[in-house]
Amino acid sequence: MPKLDLASLPVRTGSIYPPPYDTLVAGRSSLRLGEAGGLTQFGVNLVTLAPGAMSSMRHWHLAEDEFVMVTEGRFIMVTDAGETEMGPGDCAAFPANTPDGHHFLNRTGRPATFLVIGSKAPREVATYSDEDLVVTVEAGRATFTHKDGRPYIAPKGEQK
Amino acid sequence: MPKLDLASLPVRTGSIYPPPYDTLVAGRSSLRLGEAGGLTQFGVNLVTLAPGAMSSMRHWHLAEDEFVMVTEGRFIMVTDAGETEMGPGDCAAFPANTPDGHHFLNRTGRPATFLVIGSKAPREVATYSDEDLVVTVEAGRATFTHKDGRPYIAPKGEQK
Repeated sequence: MPKLDLASLPVRTGSIYPPPYDTLVAGRSSLRLGEAGGLTQFGVNLVTLAPGAMSSMRHWHLAEDEFVMVTEGRFIMVTDAGETEMGPGDCAAFPANTPDGHHFLNRTGRPATFLVIGSKAPREVATYSDEDLVVTVEAGRATFTHKDGRPYIAPKGEQK
Repeated sequence: MPKLDLASLPVRTGSIYPPPYDTLVAGRSSLRLGEAGGLTQFGVNLVTLAPGAMSSMRHWHLAEDEFVMVTEGRFIMVTDAGETEMGPGDCAAFPANTPDGHHFLNRTGRPATFLVIGSKAPREVATYSDEDLVVTVEAGRATFTHKDGRPYIAPKGEQK
């Protein structure tokens, strides 16, 4: 059956970010819709942010196109240009290799949800605009470095 | 600006289908959101069907994954399993090379809209489940054949 039963899908929370960044995306949860439907060529996630939550650190992708449509509630999208309000039906596109980081904030008192689609590059590099941090994802493994390439090591007392 | 101004986008109508199939998708219009946002790795279209319209002939893709989310109104999705009702927020996934054709019908009295995402294979073959018709799309050119490979020639009096 191609129709997805969203209520049956596992709700994913947590973060791949190293400390102290890992707590930044508390309040974010998502459903992996594309994976649930057997898709392998691009990812489709339905992301819900609790009041006060953020989607990610502000970032841009080297290899992967990304597309977002808001489905419920209201967000602030932050890019180099500043803040943009986004409501249901509003869409944003982020072509690969465009060094203008983005993320979404829920500053309302109610949960808000967007659909996000991303291509699946064999090797991806995401750069975090407002931090000295880069992640390289290859063969399912994420490696965090500083922008000059040095390995990122979490501050003492914050390592897990 | 990554946010798209949907109201400014050209509304696309018409069909690549040869006669007599070309009139089947009258009442279908779409906005090419991904293209408008500069994306090249996958397609994102917002498709609206007028009352009585259909999205396409029932078909399946050989090379391309496809994903649909209903954003407004109600549809009937038709697959080999029969008819499935779809309303706002409902999603369906169609993995490549799964020979179960699908299409969407608007049997309501109001327009209805879905978002559709598809990957972009260099060569794609779509097979129409209920007709003796196949289309191969390569380098931006669509070629219609019968299922045994013979060229499709529109019936006399219906050629344009």
